[in-house]
Amino acid sequence: MNRQGELVLPDSTLLSAAPVAPNGGRLQPLGVDSIQLTDGFWADRQRVNAAAIIPHSIGWMDRLGWTGNLADAATGKPYQHRGREFADSEIYKLIEALSWEQGRGEPGSADLLDRLIGLVEGAQDPDGYVHTLFGRPWQAPRYSDFRWGHELYCFGHLMQAAVAHKRSTESDRLLEVARRLADHICVMFGPDGLNRVCGHAEVELGLVELFRQTGERRYLEQASLFIERRGTGTLPLFEFGAAFWQDDQPVRDATVLRGHAVRALYLAAGAVDVAVETGDTELLQALEGQWATTVARRTYITGGMGSHHMDEAFGEDFVLPPDRSYCETCAGVASILFSWRLLLATGKPEYAGLIERTLYNVVATSPSADGRAFFYANTLHQRVEHSLPSLNDDGVVIRGGASGRQPWYEVSCCPPNVARTLASLGAYVATRTTSALQIHQFMSAELVADGWNVAVNTAYPADGVVSIHVRDAPAGGLLELRVPGWAGGAVIEDAHGARSVNPGYVKVPVEAGAALTLTIPMHVRRTFPDDRIDALRATVAFERGPEVFALESIDLPDGVAIEDVRVDAASARYDGATVVVTAGLFERNSDGGWPYGEISTESLPSNVDLRLVRYHEWAERGPSTMRVWAPVLR
Amino acid sequence: MNRQGELVLPDSTLLSAAPVAPNGGRLQPLGVDSIQLTDGFWADRQRVNAAAIIPHSIGWMDRLGWTGNLADAATGKPYQHRGREFADSEIYKLIEALSWEQGRGEPGSADLLDRLIGLVEGAQDPDGYVHTLFGRPWQAPRYSDFRWGHELYCFGHLMQAAVAHKRSTESDRLLEVARRLADHICVMFGPDGLNRVCGHAEVELGLVELFRQTGERRYLEQASLFIERRGTGTLPLFEFGAAFWQDDQPVRDATVLRGHAVRALYLAAGAVDVAVETGDTELLQALEGQWATTVARRTYITGGMGSHHMDEAFGEDFVLPPDRSYCETCAGVASILFSWRLLLATGKPEYAGLIERTLYNVVATSPSADGRAFFYANTLHQRVEHSLPSLNDDGVVIRGGASGRQPWYEVSCCPPNVARTLASLGAYVATRTTSALQIHQFMSAELVADGWNVAVNTAYPADGVVSIHVRDAPAGGLLELRVPGWAGGAVIEDAHGARSVNPGYVKVPVEAGAALTLTIPMHVRRTFPDDRIDALRATVAFERGPEVFALESIDLPDGVAIEDVRVDAASARYDGATVVVTAGLFERNSDGGWPYGEISTESLPSNVDLRLVRYHEWAERGPSTMRVWAPVLR
Repeated sequence: MNRQGELVLPDSTLLSAAPVAPNGGRLQPLGVDSIQLTDGFWADRQRVNAAAIIPHSIGWMDRLGWTGNLADAATGKPYQHRGREFADSEIYKLIEALSWEQGRGEPGSADLLDRLIGLVEGAQDPDGYVHTLFGRPWQAPRYSDFRWGHELYCFGHLMQAAVAHKRSTESDRLLEVARRLADHICVMFGPDGLNRVCGHAEVELGLVELFRQTGERRYLEQASLFIERRGTGTLPLFEFGAAFWQDDQPVRDATVLRGHAVRALYLAAGAVDVAVETGDTELLQALEGQWATTVARRTYITGGMGSHHMDEAFGEDFVLPPDRSYCETCAGVASILFSWRLLLATGKPEYAGLIERTLYNVVATSPSADGRAFFYANTLHQRVEHSLPSLNDDGVVIRGGASGRQPWYEVSCCPPNVARTLASLGAYVATRTTSALQIHQFMSAELVADGWNVAVNTAYPADGVVSIHVRDAPAGGLLELRVPGWAGGAVIEDAHGARSVNPGYVKVPVEAGAALTLTIPMHVRRTFPDDRIDALRATVAFERGPEVFALESIDLPDGVAIEDVRVDAASARYDGATVVVTAGLFERNSDGGWPYGEISTESLPSNVDLRLVRYHEWAERGPSTMRVWAPVLR
Repeated sequence: MNRQGELVLPDSTLLSAAPVAPNGGRLQPLGVDSIQLTDGFWADRQRVNAAAIIPHSIGWMDRLGWTGNLADAATGKPYQHRGREFADSEIYKLIEALSWEQGRGEPGSADLLDRLIGLVEGAQDPDGYVHTLFGRPWQAPRYSDFRWGHELYCFGHLMQAAVAHKRSTESDRLLEVARRLADHICVMFGPDGLNRVCGHAEVELGLVELFRQTGERRYLEQASLFIERRGTGTLPLFEFGAAFWQDDQPVRDATVLRGHAVRALYLAAGAVDVAVETGDTELLQALEGQWATTVARRTYITGGMGSHHMDEAFGEDFVLPPDRSYCETCAGVASILFSWRLLLATGKPEYAGLIERTLYNVVATSPSADGRAFFYANTLHQRVEHSLPSLNDDGVVIRGGASGRQPWYEVSCCPPNVARTLASLGAYVATRTTSALQIHQFMSAELVADGWNVAVNTAYPADGVVSIHVRDAPAGGLLELRVPGWAGGAVIEDAHGARSVNPGYVKVPVEAGAALTLTIPMHVRRTFPDDRIDALRATVAFERGPEVFALESIDLPDGVAIEDVRVDAASARYDGATVVVTAGLFERNSDGGWPYGEISTESLPSNVDLRLVRYHEWAERGPSTMRVWAPVLR
C-alpha cells in the first residue's frame, strides 16, 4: 500500500493477467490465466469471440483503412486519414482482446497481435505521441480539439492494451510504447503543462494501470490530476452542456452520473482507481454514492444505461423510456469497469450483481449468435420491424437507432469493446483475499491460483444448480459464494448437510476434496417498475435468474400487434425454454382522428398463451417488434 | 383558376393582406387589413408582440451582428459572419412580422421596416443571390452545402417577407429583391439546372406565394420541381437518415410526416400550395392523409409536434413521451401553416381545430407574458426545476432542452416566428366563399370585407359565449360558424330562437342587423390517452375549451413532489380561474437501491384539492416542475 505516499513496487503475484490490479482494496483480482471457462453460456461466447468477433472486427478495420492509418503514419508521407477521430482506439481495444486471448492460453492470434503492435510502434512519434489524425504538417495540430479530438482517449486505450499485453505475454514491446506515451502525457499535461482534459475520459484508466504495472508514480499523479481537473470548466462551451463530458462539477462533488454515459462511466472507473491508489476515501465514498443513485434512478432493468439518443446520455432521474432507451453497448462495458473496481475496493455484493445483470442483458445482447453483427444501442421496446439505418459514405451504419444488429458502424466501439470483455471475462469470475476465494459469477470453470484448485460445474442460468469441487485449498481456506440479491430461498449443501442462505456472500470453510452445491431458485419473477418511471406505469417485466425476458412479435398470433397484448402477470411460468404468460388480446378499431379522448372500454375477447424469449436472444429470428415491459390486464 | 395551364392573373381582391392567397380551393382568405382583433386573449398578445417581442428580437439581432451581416455584405469588404447559417432568415421573418403590423394599421414600425429592407437591398448580388454567409471570395462557395447551408431556406423566408410587404404596404421595394432572387433560383435549379434541394424545406412556400403575387408561372413550376425532387436521394447521407430532411421518399408517396418536424411541416405546407395551384388532387389527397395520420399518431395533446431532442424530429407512431417532448415552437407555427393551407383547400373543420389547439397551447406558451423570453421546446413534463441551459460563446442558449423561457437562442427561430404569426393572426380568423363568411376562431374582432361588416364579441376562452353582430352582409349572406370537435352541446341563438348545434360548421343565413350568439360548453374535460402511448398509461389530462391545463409544483403543498400526486379524475372542476382536482399524495419511503421489484402498496393518506393552471401560463411564477398528464388514483 502506498497510503504514506511512498513508492511501493507492485506485488508481482497481483499482476497475473488481470485487467485491473489495485495496490489495495478489499479483494484481489485473479488473472485470465488463473480461470478457464470450460463450457456453457460464457465459454460458448468466448469461442464465438475468438472465431468470429475478433477476426470480423479486424477484417472491417483493415478494409476501412483504420489499421492502414497506422501503417501510413509510419511512412512519414502524407495520407488521407480514414474513419473517425477515435479509429486508433478500436485497434487498441482489439490488441487488448487479442492479448487476453493469449493470456488465457489461446495462442492462435499471436501473429495478428504482432502485426498490430508493429503498426503501433511504427506510428509513434519520437517524443512518444501517437495518433494518426493529428500533428503532421498536413494535419490539424496536436491538441487542437479537446472536445472531439479523442487524443487522450486513444492514449488511454493504448495503455490499457499495453498492460494487457505485458500481463498476458510478458512481452515489453507495447509496454515500451505506452511508457514513452505516458511520459509524453506527463510532460504535456502535468502540473506545469496544459490545464486541459480530454472530451472523453479514458486516459485515467490507462495511466493508473500503467502505474500499477511499472511502479512509475508520475502516471498515477497524472491520472489524479486529470480527475481533479475535470469539472473545472476547462472544456469549451457546447450545445449539450458541460455535463455532457462531466465538466460541470468536480468528480468528488457529484452525486449521480450524468451526461454522455460512456464518458461518465469511464471517468468514474478511473476515479475509483485513483481513489484506491491514493487512499482517498472521500473520493471513493462519493463514487459509491454516485453508483447507488445512478442504479436507483437512471438504470434500465437490463443494466443498460443512457436514455437519450441525442447526446448518448443519462436522462434525468426516472427518465427511462423503453422505446427510446439508448443503453449503448459500450456503456454496459463501461458500467462493468466501474462496478468491478468498486467490487475490488469494497467487496460489496451489489457491484457483482449489477455486473451479472449487465453481462447477461447488455454484453450478451449486442453480438448476434454468429458474432458478425452487433447492437450499438440496446432498446427495450422496438416499435417497428425495420427502421432504416443511416449509412455513411463507406456504406456502414453510423451509430445507434437502427433496428437489428449491424455488421459494423462508423462509430464501431462496441465490437472491440465486447471482444475485450469476453476475452477477459474469466478475470471477473472470482477474487481472493488472504485465505478466502470469492466466487462472484457462476460459470463452469477451472480455477487454479495461490493454493486453490477449484472446479465449478453448472448449467446456470439454464438452471440454478452450481456444483463446486475443491481439489485443493490453502490452510484455513474459505469459499465465499455470492448469492444474488433476487435469489431468496437459495440453499447450500455440503458435507455438513443443506441449509438456506441469504443473498450476499455465504462463507463456507473448505479443505481439499470438499464438494458443495449451491442451488439458486430459478422461478419466473414478476417485476414491477417504480411508479416514477412514467413510461412503465401499469406494466410488468419477467425475469428468471439473471436474465430478462422479452415479447417478440414473431411469437404472436397472426394479425396481432405487440401493442395489443395485455398480460396476466400472475400467470407467468417457465416451460423449460421460454417464459409463458396468459394474455388478453386487445381488439382495436381503426384509429380515431385524435389519440386523446374519453376513456374507452377495452375489448379483450381471447385468452392466449404467449411465450417470451430471453432478451439477449431477441432479433435472432428475423425482423420483429419487441417489448420487455408488457402492459398488465386490468 | 389555372387548371388548363394558362397564365391567370390573380384576382386582386384575393390579394388583400393575407399570408396565403391561393388561386383555388374551397375557401378564400381575408387579409389582416380586413379583421381587427379588438380585445381579449389574442389582441393582448398582439399588443405584446408590437411592444415587446418585435423590438426585443430586433435588439438581439442588432446586438449579435445578424443585421450587421447584411450591412457588411453591402460594403463588398471582407467581414466575419455572425450567427448561424440561417441568421438572415430571422431578419426576413421579422420583416414579415413588421409588414403585417403595417397591414393591420400599426404604422409605428415603418422606419424600422425601411431600415431592414434597405439592408437586404444592399446585400443582394447583381444576379439576384442574397445570402451573407456564402459566395464572397473569402467565404465558402455558393451552394457548397445543401445539408446545412440553408441558402434556399433563407430565400423562401425572404420571398414570404416580400409578399407580406407588398400586400401590406403596396410597396414594390422588397418584391423587386424577391423577384430577382426567384429568377436566379429558377436559372440555378430549374429543369436544366442543379438537381438539388435544400436540407430545410421553405423555399417552396416563398416561390408559390411569389407566383400568386406576381403571376409569374416559372416560380410555381420551380416550387413544383422542388417538391417532386424531394425524396429522390439528392441530399448526402447523414447520421439521422434521409427522413431527417424528408429525402427518403417522394412527397406524394408518403403516408405520414417524419424526420425533422419543422422541415417536414414546411415541406408539407409548400406541397399543398403546389397541389392547389396545379390542380394536383392526388398530391392534395396524399397530404391530407399525412396530416390525418400524423395527428392521430404523432401529435401531443397541445398540438405540439416532435418527440426527439436529438434530431428535433417526429418519433415513430405513439412515441410521445411527455418528459422528452420536444414540441418546438416553430413546429407549432409550421403546423398552423400546413393546416391553414389544407383548410383553405378543403374547408374541413378539423384543420381549424388543430390550428386553435396549437395557437392556445404552443404559440401562446412560447413567449413569456412580457414578450421578452421564449420557450424553444415546449415540454409536457418538467422533471427538474432548473436544468442548466447550454450557452454559446455569445452567452446565449443554443436550443431546446433548458428549463424556463430564455431571452434568446443561438438558433433563434422561435421569437420571429411567433412574431409573424401574432402579427398576421387576424388572417386566420375567418374566410369567405361566394356568399358566405366562415368564422374559424373566436376572438373579439371587427371584420369588414366584401360586403360584410361583422362585430364579434367574446371573452372566449374564459367563457364560451360568442356574440356576433352583423352590421352589414351581402345578399343571401350565410354565416358559417365553426363548432369545435370537443364542443358537444353547443347552442346557437338568433332571432329564430335557440337550437343545439353539432360540431362542424353551423350555417346561419343572416342579413344586415342580425345578432346571434353561439354558446360553447366550457366544462372541464377529462382526457385519456390512447393506450399505445406507453408513456401516458394510467394518466389523465384536463382540458377546458381549447386550453390544456398543467399541474405545477408551485401549487403543491410544501414537501410534496409532483411525482407523488395521484388525481381523482372525476373530481375535476373549474373554479373560475383554475382547474381544481382532488388528489391523493403518495407517501414515499426513500429510494430502494433498485427501481424494479415486487409491487408495493401505495400509501395515500391525504386527500387534498390541487389546482392546475393553463399550460400556456406555466413557468411564469418562478422555477417549478410541471406535468400535463397526471397519474390517476387507482
